[in-house]
Amino acid sequence: MASALKHINYGKSRVRVAKIVRHENRHDFSDLTVDLRLQGGFEECYLSGDNSMVIPTDTMKNTVYAIAAGQSLDPVEGFARAAGEHFLATHAHVCSAQIDIVEHRWDRLDPYAFEQGRPVRFASALVSRDGVTIHSGVDNLILLKTTKSAFAGYLKDRYTTLKETTDRILATSLKATWRYINLEVDYNAVMASCRRLMVEVFAAHDSLAVQQTLYAMGDAVLQQHEEIAEISLSMPNKHYLPVNLELLGLENRNEIFLPTDEPHGQIEACVIR
Amino acid sequence: MASALKHINYGKSRVRVAKIVRHENRHDFSDLTVDLRLQGGFEECYLSGDNSMVIPTDTMKNTVYAIAAGQSLDPVEGFARAAGEHFLATHAHVCSAQIDIVEHRWDRLDPYAFEQGRPVRFASALVSRDGVTIHSGVDNLILLKTTKSAFAGYLKDRYTTLKETTDRILATSLKATWRYINLEVDYNAVMASCRRLMVEVFAAHDSLAVQQTLYAMGDAVLQQHEEIAEISLSMPNKHYLPVNLELLGLENRNEIFLPTDEPHGQIEACVIR
Amino acid sequence: MASALKHINYGKSRVRVAKIVRHENRHDFSDLTVDLRLQGGFEECYLSGDNSMVIPTDTMKNTVYAIAAGQSLDPVEGFARAAGEHFLATHAHVCSAQIDIVEHRWDRLDPYAFEQGRPVRFASALVSRDGVTIHSGVDNLILLKTTKSAFAGYLKDRYTTLKETTDRILATSLKATWRYINLEVDYNAVMASCRRLMVEVFAAHDSLAVQQTLYAMGDAVLQQHEEIAEISLSMPNKHYLPVNLELLGLENRNEIFLPTDEPHGQIEACVIR
Amino acid sequence: MASALKHINYGKSRVRVAKIVRHENRHDFSDLTVDLRLQGGFEECYLSGDNSMVIPTDTMKNTVYAIAAGQSLDPVEGFARAAGEHFLATHAHVCSAQIDIVEHRWDRLDPYAFEQGRPVRFASALVSRDGVTIHSGVDNLILLKTTKSAFAGYLKDRYTTLKETTDRILATSLKATWRYINLEVDYNAVMASCRRLMVEVFAAHDSLAVQQTLYAMGDAVLQQHEEIAEISLSMPNKHYLPVNLELLGLENRNEIFLPTDEPHGQIEACVIR
Repeated sequence: MASALKHINYGKSRVRVAKIVRHENRHDFSDLTVDLRLQGGFEECYLSGDNSMVIPTDTMKNTVYAIAAGQSLDPVEGFARAAGEHFLATHAHVCSAQIDIVEHRWDRLDPYAFEQGRPVRFASALVSRDGVTIHSGVDNLILLKTTKSAFAGYLKDRYTTLKETTDRILATSLKATWRYINLEVDYNAVMASCRRLMVEVFAAHDSLAVQQTLYAMGDAVLQQHEEIAEISLSMPNKHYLPVNLELLGLENRNEIFLPTDEPHGQIEACVIR
Repeated sequence: MASALKHINYGKSRVRVAKIVRHENRHDFSDLTVDLRLQGGFEECYLSGDNSMVIPTDTMKNTVYAIAAGQSLDPVEGFARAAGEHFLATHAHVCSAQIDIVEHRWDRLDPYAFEQGRPVRFASALVSRDGVTIHSGVDNLILLKTTKSAFAGYLKDRYTTLKETTDRILATSLKATWRYINLEVDYNAVMASCRRLMVEVFAAHDSLAVQQTLYAMGDAVLQQHEEIAEISLSMPNKHYLPVNLELLGLENRNEIFLPTDEPHGQIEACVIR
Repeated sequence: MASALKHINYGKSRVRVAKIVRHENRHDFSDLTVDLRLQGGFEECYLSGDNSMVIPTDTMKNTVYAIAAGQSLDPVEGFARAAGEHFLATHAHVCSAQIDIVEHRWDRLDPYAFEQGRPVRFASALVSRDGVTIHSGVDNLILLKTTKSAFAGYLKDRYTTLKETTDRILATSLKATWRYINLEVDYNAVMASCRRLMVEVFAAHDSLAVQQTLYAMGDAVLQQHEEIAEISLSMPNKHYLPVNLELLGLENRNEIFLPTDEPHGQIEACVIR
Repeated sequence: MASALKHINYGKSRVRVAKIVRHENRHDFSDLTVDLRLQGGFEECYLSGDNSMVIPTDTMKNTVYAIAAGQSLDPVEGFARAAGEHFLATHAHVCSAQIDIVEHRWDRLDPYAFEQGRPVRFASALVSRDGVTIHSGVDNLILLKTTKSAFAGYLKDRYTTLKETTDRILATSLKATWRYINLEVDYNAVMASCRRLMVEVFAAHDSLAVQQTLYAMGDAVLQQHEEIAEISLSMPNKHYLPVNLELLGLENRNEIFLPTDEPHGQIEACVIR
């Protein structure tokens, strides 16, 4: 008996596109990596090799360039939505398009020159026959504080060897993704505000656990931004371990640390109203 | 009004562990990277910083070593399950544990020496109060064929520029993940058989589209392995583009290609009975 | 006949160390990756396995922590020199020590919190019985300008297909390394000045070729900094290729570009007085 | 006073090329990444932006494709030499060409299908007006043995904390590069033999130190291959550290290890006759 398809997914990944907008006294510059995925009547290609309903992924790539020629890449949320809407408008058998964009940040040096910066900003539009869903976020926002972080009072079992601490380094590489209720917003302004809020709370929070700080950061975004329905945060605990200097005949007064990549704690939550 | 938690997730990532099993005339060697995630009564830590129910991720790491001391790392599916079951047996407030393992493959050179090989094998156990779910898979299995691959008869729209072809290079980096119905199997034997089947179908298939080849590979696994309920395959289309030599005054008789990473097609499906 | 040793080299790589300096109203924070290499009477270990003169690389790692406990990590040039001098002072058979340090940059957010930034700063000290040589540099300083870059008038041969251009995007990931004549300098001030000078020249230069811009950047540093003997610059030409939109029925008015990683031009020189 | 050029270097990096050779009953397949560097009369471009002697790096890329159309990519040493010789024959002002090639290994599955394998093979040709120098090598050959490796009797100083061991895991990622005296050899046969010899010595050697094993491996190659003048080996000591299970109330009978990437020992030498 032949097998069946539970679900399918196809598209083009890592389409790179950049655009110069030439103003009189300055240039604006956008630089994106775009992933596209389509859902629709594509099963027959899997089952029999009938390609007649298949939009080649090469065409998807070309479409990105064509849309980029006709409209702004900024904000990326608008460009993602336009790309998704194009496929539904053009092809009746496409029921949804998922467009994921990473924006490579370029900080202005002068009216025509830029330095690549951090962190990465991303956005996605899921465009279906029922409507549009927009997510935005930041990734690889690496933060560290040298105080106001404790970890104590946790559950002990037979394999617990960790020492309690009232004063440790807290470091993370933040990824945050939020979903909009209201799509008529200034996405760039919301992005700047969310980033600022999360960084401020990270720095100011008297942390009893990474979990608590994560929740406080998400809560701050939701309190300030009614246009946001929910926010997911991922905060790996990038451990900076105090180095044992006693064997070297020295004392470590909570000054010397070993930064580690592996292993790391992984703390995540989705915060809603 | 305070925010709420929609869902939470925490654990330890990238715990590295290796084990030598010392037989009389040879050593066996296993080398793993383990990720652990727990679900249970951990909300209060997020909301108030109360850590009393928190199992430190450092303890999770220690637990991996303790379990590794007491049982085999081979097969990885069994080790993943044992690790998950430990947390449910030890802590009443843990409702599920997800253990994801990547096994770094070492090919034997002699009874005591090994060369690291490809591809990566992985497995996961989701252990909950309701039962156990096991997935296995391979990743980064990079395959290429120089013939028996066509792509034609596809939908054209205004942005289609791709030329139809009856003879192209087909290359992919296969990731395949399957879910077991029956957990009383020889996981290593199933792994070897699934890998062999997928490679054989990839090589033998007269491909009209990557989608069709992907489905044929998944179907072959399901036909042969009753213990498998479903299999998901991800097959990026790693394009090898014919180089246009005409501008150089030369002819390209389908011989010279430009391998590209970016962009790439991304073809995926989940195949079930 | 036995083989001989032409040269040998050994040491420890990727030693990670961080240090908090706790001032009354703020903390300073340094975060380094250190590589150490020793030269000296180590041949016998290679030839016969006699380890009696071998300083274990684990001891080198410990030494980094011991020195970090006793002196500032800032500037990194001073720390590198101190580490190198330690090995020559401690072990008579060590004839030279090469210490290479990458400093992970943390931009201050508040007195106790930081965000990881770009680019990377590095430094090395080669400490021998004859003296000390210090190099400093920046890596991964990614720059782009949208105008004032041409490339024309180049040599054509039978395989030349590139079109001349008077207005292209110029992008690079700069690595620059300079050697000091005078070691009694404010390394942090020189670092800041060199970085600023190179960025300013990159932005302002009417570039006829990457080579010319590279030379102008190096020349500017040498003109301003008498304490620098020479500077090596490496500037990959990260191509942003105009997308051909004609096949899509559209015009590209030098606005839409395909950023590429592969292949890339590689332009390098060492500039001296 | 203007600065001067101490040395310059330019070329194209990461040129990707693949070739199918279509035999009656099978296809051969080669897949390369090529870097090219030219030396010659290119100073004026740096100093004044005069490009008249500059061979565009885009032309270098085209040249790779043109040469690939006309001759075999196998062995890579021959292709590298042919590419280098082309530039000297075509352009009188080029005094030398350095061609570095990485060959991506494809293991045959059937007459027309392949699986990508390890390790990487590389080769370089330095073609100058005075002659040709050929290097070959392997990289990323990851080897591990579970016994016959000791490290004891080393020098102790105040910062030494490492315990002596007579039975440890030895693991490395071997890079080996050899230079040919005789260029009229079967490069593929020498490559296979060198790889086999190094792996055999690694496995069989009763190692008192990584240094000693490295030397034995290089010596074995030189003893067997008169056509090789010298061989450089780089062997990072990828530490597998015994896990301390005592704190968990368990014993580690040299069975459970923590694989680490960072830090690692770095052991290197060049062995000659």
